[in-house]
Amino acid sequence: MTLSKKPYRGTRDFFPKDKRVQDYMFSKMSEAANLYGYEPYDGPLLEEVELYKAKSGEELINDQIYSFNDRGERFVAIRPEMTPTVARMVAQIHKEQAKPIRWFSIPNLMRYEKPQRGRLREHWQFNCDVFGAPGRFGEIEILQVAAQLLESFGANEKNFEILINDREIVDHIFSNLIKADQEQTYRLYKIVDKSKKVDEAAINKMVDEVGLSADGKDAFLKYLTLTSFEDLKAFVSTSDANLDSFDEFITLLNNSSVSKYIKYDPTIVRGLDYYTGVVFEIFDKHPDNRRAICGGGAYANLLQIFNEKPLPGVGFGLGDVTLRDFLETHNLLPDLEKDNFDIFVTFQDEGARDASLSIADQLRKQGIKAVTQFEKVKFNKVFKQAEKKSVRFVSFLGDQELEKKTILIKNLESKEQKEFNHSDIEAIRDYIRS
Amino acid sequence: MTLSKKPYRGTRDFFPKDKRVQDYMFSKMSEAANLYGYEPYDGPLLEEVELYKAKSGEELINDQIYSFNDRGERFVAIRPEMTPTVARMVAQIHKEQAKPIRWFSIPNLMRYEKPQRGRLREHWQFNCDVFGAPGRFGEIEILQVAAQLLESFGANEKNFEILINDREIVDHIFSNLIKADQEQTYRLYKIVDKSKKVDEAAINKMVDEVGLSADGKDAFLKYLTLTSFEDLKAFVSTSDANLDSFDEFITLLNNSSVSKYIKYDPTIVRGLDYYTGVVFEIFDKHPDNRRAICGGGAYANLLQIFNEKPLPGVGFGLGDVTLRDFLETHNLLPDLEKDNFDIFVTFQDEGARDASLSIADQLRKQGIKAVTQFEKVKFNKVFKQAEKKSVRFVSFLGDQELEKKTILIKNLESKEQKEFNHSDIEAIRDYIRS
Repeated sequence: MTLSKKPYRGTRDFFPKDKRVQDYMFSKMSEAANLYGYEPYDGPLLEEVELYKAKSGEELINDQIYSFNDRGERFVAIRPEMTPTVARMVAQIHKEQAKPIRWFSIPNLMRYEKPQRGRLREHWQFNCDVFGAPGRFGEIEILQVAAQLLESFGANEKNFEILINDREIVDHIFSNLIKADQEQTYRLYKIVDKSKKVDEAAINKMVDEVGLSADGKDAFLKYLTLTSFEDLKAFVSTSDANLDSFDEFITLLNNSSVSKYIKYDPTIVRGLDYYTGVVFEIFDKHPDNRRAICGGGAYANLLQIFNEKPLPGVGFGLGDVTLRDFLETHNLLPDLEKDNFDIFVTFQDEGARDASLSIADQLRKQGIKAVTQFEKVKFNKVFKQAEKKSVRFVSFLGDQELEKKTILIKNLESKEQKEFNHSDIEAIRDYIRS
Repeated sequence: MTLSKKPYRGTRDFFPKDKRVQDYMFSKMSEAANLYGYEPYDGPLLEEVELYKAKSGEELINDQIYSFNDRGERFVAIRPEMTPTVARMVAQIHKEQAKPIRWFSIPNLMRYEKPQRGRLREHWQFNCDVFGAPGRFGEIEILQVAAQLLESFGANEKNFEILINDREIVDHIFSNLIKADQEQTYRLYKIVDKSKKVDEAAINKMVDEVGLSADGKDAFLKYLTLTSFEDLKAFVSTSDANLDSFDEFITLLNNSSVSKYIKYDPTIVRGLDYYTGVVFEIFDKHPDNRRAICGGGAYANLLQIFNEKPLPGVGFGLGDVTLRDFLETHNLLPDLEKDNFDIFVTFQDEGARDASLSIADQLRKQGIKAVTQFEKVKFNKVFKQAEKKSVRFVSFLGDQELEKKTILIKNLESKEQKEFNHSDIEAIRDYIRS
């Protein structure tokens, strides 16, 4: 039987040129997190399904999760998101820990999706969370970390925007101005989620099916037209909403380094899951790639499922698939087609093999990245092979050099060529490093 | 309902101090691979079970694999090992690729194990493979990469040894000297695998059950007593074994940088799976931790399951759980209890918060890792908090400094303290970097 060479549907084979791009993105993620004092963590690939049932959205559990019974009849799932895991871990240690707790992770996650641009079944996700920050400071910082990452690739306000909303105010609007009950609220959230993808008539039809009062329907449709924080404040001013905290947030936001990216958007609600404060999505501004690269928000109650006292948290997830699409759309990725080694070590006559391989190994002990060829390479073929490897130096060793116990090292950029004795390992190292 | 805070059985929560240890080990793995010109790759978390059925051991499929039907009725498994994946990937590209192909990866893998010291259900494994190397050069290089990794932590021949065997010769012995048929060979391999863990009487009993001839049994028991390459050669000298290739291998090995670690061991056979040449295990020499840290070998025929021409490969896997045990046993891990940021930015009066946070953010734009405290910290409490974070600098900003638009920066090592203007961001950066 012949087996398929293809990867499982919706997953990727990372050949070296792709893995280098991913590693580059991962290193930028760690750097951005480190600049803000976030510490690395990771959790298990599998969690018990109960953990997701407690707080994740219904769609995730019913349609998207990879769940199965293990050999001991435990009902487990491949992690579809990281927030329940980080909440579980923080629940173990938050009592002894100085606040705020700042953590980040880059786990691989799986969802049973219909594969399409920007959406695969397996992806890696940069997760940052801050727990126990007072007031609205955690929300501001989390937005800063996310922006810092994109800025570190050279992106700016021409490339992306941060669309923002506040779940506390949205919940207030839904219950006090639209006067929707719990079931209606649930359905309205679904409509809000879809509202950018369908036309007015379709929205009208969906809203009619919810069964709101005429005033409620008007209020809901009005809500969808809001375009600024001022709009939002004017809209809720007729009710008894307490806007002190929201005002504090807006003031902090306007004075922060991310203010230039911020735009109010009533359609950002991030489903029905665990958010209780700010919710946001970072959007690509390029017309060819109008999609969210990152989403997150504040959640006050995640630790309660572990019978722990509430500890406010704020976090975001940013996936490697959408990030790469974003970076490619804006031409922000360096050329990582080839790997970067220091020297390509070759020999031109059979008898010189041992000496050539031995010198390569001695150079490695000096920290030089030496890639060898096990078979002799004709002088004129060396350069073509070296080009594929993106090395700065090549070495030659033939019968002639062997007799003199020397090796030729050539700098491919300057075309300069030097001869060294076999024992001059440190001199070769210095030449390569210079 | 209260949910459990514990991770799924046999998996780990990596709190920051543990994740830092893992990241440290991962960075050493990448470095060792890079020194030898190995390029990074990765593959999917899930593969179709057929892929493992084709070449992995029976025990793995029947008892250890995490397999299930996905929502589209595909029978898939969480990867229990990386070799089938890398073979599948190499099968896609080997025709266009210059040889040798040198690749490495650090995937997370899962096996349904009974959790115990050195063995968990989820672990990460450093995988290095070289494809298309001529003669025995690939086998030598793979041993060098594995040794290089351990040496990079400061380990040497006092800490570990490389136990080695050759499957081609073992297969020759089993069929020509012991005269075992395929079924008997299978059972003998199982006995060899167990032979170090049980006493002579138990081995005798197991061998008797295989039903060898008296001469066959004697030959098998004699085989288990071999202790050197010379022993092995003398043992097979009565048969028509062709030892040219093995002799070439031993000569290369003796002249290589890993010769000091090598020991012949007849009990190393690495199951029945895909090995066809050298097989090896790296063993911890410490009496408290006598176990394999790493295993690998040469396989000639892995690409055939994809209907591709044979391409010789050699590789090893080295897990993070056993590596950490090894490093801890020999005290080779640095102290990674605390994270390493540059400066802890504090303020002592409410009014100074904005200025303090703004300076922190400006420093980050200069590449300084600044961790802030969102609430005011009394002067005498700053040092205790800073100690937990392993920062070299702290900054203070109270009403007094605010009025002068200055900030105090203290070097915690030298105890030196300097005052800077709020606008002196670059001078602060240089002070921290100096």
